[in-house]
Amino acid sequence: MAQQNAASDSAVIKKIYDDALTSYESYDNLRYLTKNIGGRLSGSPQAAAAVEWSKQVMDKMDLDRVYLQEVMVPHWVRGDKEEARIYNSKQIGSEDVNIVALGGSVGTGDQGLSAEVVEVHNFEELEKLGKKNVKGKIVFFNRPFDNTQINTGTAYGGAVDQRGGGPVAAAKLGAVGVIVRSMTNDIQDVAHTGGTRYQEGVEKIPAAAISTRDAETLSKLLKNDAKLKLYMRMTCETLPDVLSYNVIGEIKGSEKPDEIIVVGGHLDSWDLAEGAHDDGTGCVQSIEVLRLFKDLGIKPKRTIRAVMFMNEENGLRGGTKYAEMAKENSEKHVAAIESDMGGFTPRGFGLEGSDVQLRKLQTWKPLLAPYGLHDIDYGHGGADIGPLKGQGNVALIGYEPDSQRYFDYHHTKIDVFENVNRREMQLGAAGMASLVYLISEYGL
Amino acid sequence: MAQQNAASDSAVIKKIYDDALTSYESYDNLRYLTKNIGGRLSGSPQAAAAVEWSKQVMDKMDLDRVYLQEVMVPHWVRGDKEEARIYNSKQIGSEDVNIVALGGSVGTGDQGLSAEVVEVHNFEELEKLGKKNVKGKIVFFNRPFDNTQINTGTAYGGAVDQRGGGPVAAAKLGAVGVIVRSMTNDIQDVAHTGGTRYQEGVEKIPAAAISTRDAETLSKLLKNDAKLKLYMRMTCETLPDVLSYNVIGEIKGSEKPDEIIVVGGHLDSWDLAEGAHDDGTGCVQSIEVLRLFKDLGIKPKRTIRAVMFMNEENGLRGGTKYAEMAKENSEKHVAAIESDMGGFTPRGFGLEGSDVQLRKLQTWKPLLAPYGLHDIDYGHGGADIGPLKGQGNVALIGYEPDSQRYFDYHHTKIDVFENVNRREMQLGAAGMASLVYLISEYGL
Repeated sequence: MAQQNAASDSAVIKKIYDDALTSYESYDNLRYLTKNIGGRLSGSPQAAAAVEWSKQVMDKMDLDRVYLQEVMVPHWVRGDKEEARIYNSKQIGSEDVNIVALGGSVGTGDQGLSAEVVEVHNFEELEKLGKKNVKGKIVFFNRPFDNTQINTGTAYGGAVDQRGGGPVAAAKLGAVGVIVRSMTNDIQDVAHTGGTRYQEGVEKIPAAAISTRDAETLSKLLKNDAKLKLYMRMTCETLPDVLSYNVIGEIKGSEKPDEIIVVGGHLDSWDLAEGAHDDGTGCVQSIEVLRLFKDLGIKPKRTIRAVMFMNEENGLRGGTKYAEMAKENSEKHVAAIESDMGGFTPRGFGLEGSDVQLRKLQTWKPLLAPYGLHDIDYGHGGADIGPLKGQGNVALIGYEPDSQRYFDYHHTKIDVFENVNRREMQLGAAGMASLVYLISEYGL
Repeated sequence: MAQQNAASDSAVIKKIYDDALTSYESYDNLRYLTKNIGGRLSGSPQAAAAVEWSKQVMDKMDLDRVYLQEVMVPHWVRGDKEEARIYNSKQIGSEDVNIVALGGSVGTGDQGLSAEVVEVHNFEELEKLGKKNVKGKIVFFNRPFDNTQINTGTAYGGAVDQRGGGPVAAAKLGAVGVIVRSMTNDIQDVAHTGGTRYQEGVEKIPAAAISTRDAETLSKLLKNDAKLKLYMRMTCETLPDVLSYNVIGEIKGSEKPDEIIVVGGHLDSWDLAEGAHDDGTGCVQSIEVLRLFKDLGIKPKRTIRAVMFMNEENGLRGGTKYAEMAKENSEKHVAAIESDMGGFTPRGFGLEGSDVQLRKLQTWKPLLAPYGLHDIDYGHGGADIGPLKGQGNVALIGYEPDSQRYFDYHHTKIDVFENVNRREMQLGAAGMASLVYLISEYGL
């Protein structure tokens, strides 16, 4: 193992931060990706544009290799209509509510769907209600985030089973549709989409998220009028799979070119907005890591690979394909770092890996803490890098920005460029580049 | 000194966070202060409304004492016009630019002021130009923030001398007006106001801030056309001083009632917007500290005092008066904590105090770090608590939220409620309450 030199490492890291904070390239890249290309759901023309654009950006960077990795992806489309309305049981009034179809959902048909609503907060409550209370109804999953969680990702983890598993559980009891409270800490008017799952042999019923404000309203109305009806209409559908790509750029290691460090984000996004924090920032930060090495003339000892994964949101096909190809090619991955928790101010890194790897990472705390990177501990790596798990000793590392604002924007129409602060995003890129530098020098 | 008990302290702190993150009181207070009252420049009707409102809020809280502290404050008003335009020297074109008068500036008179512009970046450059190049001109101070500073407050500190000292330095050389580049890292269209100073015996010349985008434009135009003219018109003026108040609420200590811990923010703000981050959040967080103690039934051993200081922005009369009265009444202040760096996600506390105090604060790191409060070190206390310095052993402590976004909003028309994240603000209040709790238990 190479001898560590804190003073010179500290000087390199300072150079990385100085450059990242004074260059506008990553921010201009984010502007292009969000404003000129926009939302880029897997299989969409915008996703294809994002593949072409990110390849062109890296082609200009004098890297050792830029290439595409083929992957077939699902092609779900929202269609042109999604609407919902509450009718009270006396049919003397109605109220529009904000919904968005969940990714992968079937549509309601042109006529829409109208049914009574039964509210539950978890799967146990649903089971207890049983078929007789659920059949023919719309199940409304309304468990909120636990606001006492300091990390909002933990709160998300405690609620998102409703979105993923709600439709199957409800359909098993004969429900005709599902409404899920949006995944956010905030009380908002915007609804949050996200993927849901069906199961072979269980009827596919339409599923949508409702804004938290409307979820509160619906819950209140149900208390006084259990027979109210919800009308919902969605024209979403799933089309045949489409050929798409992971986009990969690489700087070869000078001493151990066969040892690979991945830094990545996912290029696809939901369709409701521009996919700025999710995950435009992760993509431009990963490209920025390569740019910083090139522009500062830092020659990494190990190979650094920026990967724009395709189809994280509704399939994870890109991450799965990347890991398959890595195995097929007998590649040796030392570490994979993913940025997919937004372009917010840095807090640290979360490791899925061994004790030895964690202790090594923590020896670098004195180098990283001056930049706000204090939280270096076990944590969640990332969805796209997850399939690499178990290949050799690869350390899966999640870049952890501050979590407070992520679920204000996540999967909504307000996940736009304007809600990204340039410096916060740049600091994230610099933090990732610093960690990549240390791993490329000393391994893990 | 009382024996510390980390387990029970940790439980109290957890209760504080749970309550702060699930109560909407501080957020509702912020909404009222910003949306119903709005900008509250010293001497304005809104400042008087804010005094009355914050007293009423605390009157309802069953505190041991709520009172006002009289203080005479400056009464500067912006007037109804401020505009600026660049004319090229051939008089064949003009361009509007965004300016805002600096607080305390004299007006230009109804006709406005038109003059050639000379650009400088610091006082040395200005001195070198000398009277012959400055006389009759508008001096344009255009030194940007140093973006390589990780803490934006440090960058602000490296630039703000232009705003405070620019008019006097320019007037001494015969300038007729001053334009200062806005104090922000960002390139924006909004201009940032802020206080400036005149000096007895030096002519008072009109001074305004120009948006950073327009500063860049003006600088470029000057390179090609050194004889261009800037027209500016501002109808601001200073009226006679007005009677106003610090607003104070207090919970008496159960064991050492004579030992006081202050937690505060400033109630006044600039007039351009709602004064949300500066410093609505500091005020509602300070009130929230008292509410948390009351609602959780925590009886502090030492006295806790929430102070809404008046006139931080353009005079510091409230802070000065508070310290005078503390001295006059022979009060013993153990610590004063100020929140005046915005309602952003917590980072830590900065101490102006002794080694002994710092070591004591740092023993509490294990209790505070789980909540993101890692940075506990020497730092800047706060403007309003500054005048207490030297009274006994008072520790002056600045609450330090993340600094990245503060200067996007600071002193502009976009410092509004919508740009405050509820949870970030609540986490700040909980952090302050936790520190107040520890100091009230164990002293400093």
